[in-house]
Amino acid sequence: MCYNKGWLNYHRIEHYPDVDLLSKLYLCGVKDYLPGDITFTAVKELVNAINGMLNIDVEVDIQGQRELIPSDKYGIIIERCNPEKEEEFAEYKLVGDGFLLKQCGFHLLILARTESGIMYGVFELIRRIASNQSINQVEILENPKNPLRMLNHWDNMDGSIERGYSGNSFFFEDKEVVVNDRTKDYARLIASVGINGVVINNVNVRAEATELITDRYLGKLKEMADIFANYGIRLFVSANFAAPMEIGGLSLADPLDEGVANWWKDCIRKVYEAIPGFGGFLIKADSEGRPGPFTYNRTHADGANVLARALKPYGGLVVWRCFVYNCQQDWRDYKTDRARAAYDNFIGLDGKFDENVILQIKNGPMDFQVREPVSPLFGGLKNTNQMLEVQIAQEYTGQQRHVCYLIPMWKEVLDFNTYAKPEGAKIADIVSGRTYGQVNCGMAAVANTGNDYNWTGHDLAAANLYGYGRLAWNTDMSSEAIAKEWICMTYSYKDKVVNNLLQILLKSWPAYEKYTSPLGIGWMVNPNNHYGPNVDGYEYDRWGTYHRADRNGLGVDRTKEGTGYAQQYNEPNASMYENIETCPEELLLFFHYVRYDYKLKSGKTLIQHIYDTHFEGVSDVEDMIRSFEEIKSMIPEDVYQRVMERFAMQLDSAKEWRDRINTYFYRKSGVEDAYGRKIYK
Amino acid sequence: MCYNKGWLNYHRIEHYPDVDLLSKLYLCGVKDYLPGDITFTAVKELVNAINGMLNIDVEVDIQGQRELIPSDKYGIIIERCNPEKEEEFAEYKLVGDGFLLKQCGFHLLILARTESGIMYGVFELIRRIASNQSINQVEILENPKNPLRMLNHWDNMDGSIERGYSGNSFFFEDKEVVVNDRTKDYARLIASVGINGVVINNVNVRAEATELITDRYLGKLKEMADIFANYGIRLFVSANFAAPMEIGGLSLADPLDEGVANWWKDCIRKVYEAIPGFGGFLIKADSEGRPGPFTYNRTHADGANVLARALKPYGGLVVWRCFVYNCQQDWRDYKTDRARAAYDNFIGLDGKFDENVILQIKNGPMDFQVREPVSPLFGGLKNTNQMLEVQIAQEYTGQQRHVCYLIPMWKEVLDFNTYAKPEGAKIADIVSGRTYGQVNCGMAAVANTGNDYNWTGHDLAAANLYGYGRLAWNTDMSSEAIAKEWICMTYSYKDKVVNNLLQILLKSWPAYEKYTSPLGIGWMVNPNNHYGPNVDGYEYDRWGTYHRADRNGLGVDRTKEGTGYAQQYNEPNASMYENIETCPEELLLFFHYVRYDYKLKSGKTLIQHIYDTHFEGVSDVEDMIRSFEEIKSMIPEDVYQRVMERFAMQLDSAKEWRDRINTYFYRKSGVEDAYGRKIYK
Repeated sequence: MCYNKGWLNYHRIEHYPDVDLLSKLYLCGVKDYLPGDITFTAVKELVNAINGMLNIDVEVDIQGQRELIPSDKYGIIIERCNPEKEEEFAEYKLVGDGFLLKQCGFHLLILARTESGIMYGVFELIRRIASNQSINQVEILENPKNPLRMLNHWDNMDGSIERGYSGNSFFFEDKEVVVNDRTKDYARLIASVGINGVVINNVNVRAEATELITDRYLGKLKEMADIFANYGIRLFVSANFAAPMEIGGLSLADPLDEGVANWWKDCIRKVYEAIPGFGGFLIKADSEGRPGPFTYNRTHADGANVLARALKPYGGLVVWRCFVYNCQQDWRDYKTDRARAAYDNFIGLDGKFDENVILQIKNGPMDFQVREPVSPLFGGLKNTNQMLEVQIAQEYTGQQRHVCYLIPMWKEVLDFNTYAKPEGAKIADIVSGRTYGQVNCGMAAVANTGNDYNWTGHDLAAANLYGYGRLAWNTDMSSEAIAKEWICMTYSYKDKVVNNLLQILLKSWPAYEKYTSPLGIGWMVNPNNHYGPNVDGYEYDRWGTYHRADRNGLGVDRTKEGTGYAQQYNEPNASMYENIETCPEELLLFFHYVRYDYKLKSGKTLIQHIYDTHFEGVSDVEDMIRSFEEIKSMIPEDVYQRVMERFAMQLDSAKEWRDRINTYFYRKSGVEDAYGRKIYK
Repeated sequence: MCYNKGWLNYHRIEHYPDVDLLSKLYLCGVKDYLPGDITFTAVKELVNAINGMLNIDVEVDIQGQRELIPSDKYGIIIERCNPEKEEEFAEYKLVGDGFLLKQCGFHLLILARTESGIMYGVFELIRRIASNQSINQVEILENPKNPLRMLNHWDNMDGSIERGYSGNSFFFEDKEVVVNDRTKDYARLIASVGINGVVINNVNVRAEATELITDRYLGKLKEMADIFANYGIRLFVSANFAAPMEIGGLSLADPLDEGVANWWKDCIRKVYEAIPGFGGFLIKADSEGRPGPFTYNRTHADGANVLARALKPYGGLVVWRCFVYNCQQDWRDYKTDRARAAYDNFIGLDGKFDENVILQIKNGPMDFQVREPVSPLFGGLKNTNQMLEVQIAQEYTGQQRHVCYLIPMWKEVLDFNTYAKPEGAKIADIVSGRTYGQVNCGMAAVANTGNDYNWTGHDLAAANLYGYGRLAWNTDMSSEAIAKEWICMTYSYKDKVVNNLLQILLKSWPAYEKYTSPLGIGWMVNPNNHYGPNVDGYEYDRWGTYHRADRNGLGVDRTKEGTGYAQQYNEPNASMYENIETCPEELLLFFHYVRYDYKLKSGKTLIQHIYDTHFEGVSDVEDMIRSFEEIKSMIPEDVYQRVMERFAMQLDSAKEWRDRINTYFYRKSGVEDAYGRKIYK
């Protein structure tokens, strides 16, 4: 077991301007301060961080009372708001786990209502120092934008990880739960960016994983939950809807059956007896072969609510995934449209879910493609708790062999105006609870971690893990700001390093999009493993993922004339997508069948656009490699070697994408490249 | 362990005309007649067969001397030629394991030079009876056309079978060699059709299989070899060229290294000490990742000869496969041609192999496609022992879920005139040794057996196993005659059964060809498992198997303008293939890139031909099903059920092929079907 510290490695910062403020630390209003308490964790972290970065031994005064702190001496004050003296703190408008980081005279104040808030404030201060930003006269008030900021791990109990590209699981090995130093370092990493909930096992719950909620594993899970709790993180597990049958010995799993409901109640009672702070369940039901309420002619609401009612006495949540579609489609069927499935399955259930149920909705209607429209459930559902699900694991975006910085994609999703209300409602507003006043809501992401030395396979993929947490905390942050923070924290605040890595990260998603499937059509990958080009790989398969390319053009007609999918959006979005002239071009082929000779707004034909972007994408990768080579001497040698190995794989793969796509469409269209570049015949 | 008797089930024949001849049996000139002797086996088989089919208890007189047999009483005489009285038998022109079956007065004589010959004569008599053919005045002299008539089993020691579609291995289980009743029944089945050599393990020799030639397994192999010997069959194994390293502890496997040569000598000496009648080795070297002499810059001849010299003292053979090609090809490379590989690799070695080495050459240059030209090594090699390899296992021809009677395909191969000599030389002439006087030569086939109840997965696939043996014995037999024999032996000699099953079998290969890849282009299957349609499945892959379809046409140019493959044939074949006008149309796309609007000899365009054959192929399957339904009452119910289940799968699959191929080419060509049939867009 060998791993690095990720972005919490606390490399030395030379000549930091504001060291005076940092040599002493006072605690105020902190009741619990023992190992195991979040504040204790946070203070220890801050002391270590300051020592690591600035070589200062911080003196900690844990008995601090406001009035005893000398007002003419420098020092950090960590203070927890006293709920009995609400008026003293009201001016700061702290909400939930928010924090205030503010210089007040000789003091640098970190103020919060909760222990977690204190920890988040501490990490904000650490980021400032790592970025070599002055804290002189700092004043930052941050309240989390999303109540829930979750990670979903698709780890299996045999140690494998579904769609894992960073080694094996560090949660499971040989059907046992693993708790060790790495558990703590993992919690520390993700807490530092604001994660407050973790689902540790694969949503496809099979075999032993079904038993995670039984005595067989609860003891070990308690150990893990305690470590997580030290960092303000709640432990969740993916549960098997058929558990009453598979491990309960019942003959059915009908959510309206009293025996089933009682079984769940009993099961959940035992879970909470073992782990009082347990978060709840993530459920994938009636999807891709997983069991669910459909078997009993029950609805998803019936299915979710039976669990919710059993969890409710303990404050537990049910997170119910909306990734439900027909995965036995016939390619000859032009009417069934997988894109429609989540909306069609769930919109009729709006308002029917209990208050501790949250629907977890993938960002797009398909499955984490490099480019998709947003799910029309956002802006459709009005009386249902919602959580946005994104995928940090690069299943369809290069599998951590390609650099693909995904924050800009998620930003676009969050910023999308659903027009759910006349004055507008961005997805960020909806999932945060701002639009409809929900409290059980937020964001979830499929993690990209594993037991690789660098946690994420590709060193630069850590930016996505880091960035997801930061974005879920504060959806207003820009992709650039997040990337810069991560670079400073991980490697260096020096301009050259920051600029070059920033260039690479910001170029990476557009580059990947350019050299893979064009204009929102998606897929064109090798079936099953989802890596590398295969234009017809899914074209005649049962997964509902078609491009319909012929000798004249390609694309799926999802207008009223076609599958009608565009009509699932609110106006004016529906009309925008419906009309080829107003449809955003990056989604043109998702919504329309388009001829190769169709003129894009650039003046290029569709086919020439395909050729151009594919040549450009490869050229972009070459640029990224050059940028990276330039900072060789400024980053650790092992990082450089690992990243360069992956860049070599990426470049090969990008060329393969370019050539296959170009050849495929040349063979179909017969149109020569306007610039006479090499297209294989 | 439960299985049927295949074509040796000896069902009752009512009203057989010539029962008188069969009630008594005399043995003459037989020296060895104990359990374990082939003659003993043969006599027992004949007695059982006559009893089973005709309900007669045959009285056996084993002390028979010609002069003591009453010349006025009916009886069968089984006589082995006395080599000391050659002149007495010279008139019969018996060669090798040939036999004479002849009525002489009151006697039915089965005469042979060898014990095996007697057995083959016995099985000929059994076939006559099963087919309800009179033996009155019968006179059949048959000498085997091919000295070696082998089966290759691709069985792995874990019990799986590479490209096995009939269950698991009955030779291996859990890394152990299995010898039981089924071993004997297997030997009996294949001996009855003339097989005299069997390779029991996969040509890809890995892990434990490398140790088959060591003490660990030789004891058990001896038991198996003894059973085989009772039926005139020699046991061979596939060996690992790297065995000197993998199990010998040497640092290399260089065939010119003395230590390596000595290791093989020592190893082989021990093998023959354990199994004196051992046949030798089958070797797949330097192919698809298997080790071979290339590692040491040695030739295939060097590699084969080192083994041959170690085997020679014991009469052992090395069968060396010519399936050698570059399996890391780039689809962008239009010059490398997998079809050229076997010829390019081996033609320069002609005459360099020892006399106990045989090159085993696949029928075509690619890999057992539904249609390929013959390998140009046949007619190219002149001073090298050669064996024709065909595949009974239906890897690319429906995997025993589709009926595909392959004898007609093999007949075409055998009848192909290579023009190796001015007067012509068919492949049947070359591999039999007739053209160049070789003695170590013949035919080999990848078996289609497994531990399924019916041995071959599909009941009708047994016709291919049966037929391969019969054809290897007598390459002059017609496909119809072989099929009729198999039907009579297995089910019934009744006209309706024979006619309907014959129709099905003879229709099956053409039907499969019609609904799968057109005009010799091959492939278009799902990668790896090779079942079901996937037009572009291999098109951009590394296997050298491309169709090069674009919007104007498809096909691979293998003329001088293209890869030059056609030039590997002798004239006039080279020119025949080179010229699109004289190229046989069933191979048109193998040799030429052809436009969709090219007019075939039928007057149809290529694209219309593709549509038509795909509609016809499905219709042929429907015809086959109707034919089969008509004989429901005349065949065993379990057979009917099993075959109908497979027919349902075949029909589904045929429709999928039809629709995918038609849609694929419609999308590329844009040409409508002339008859307006349903082609999905």
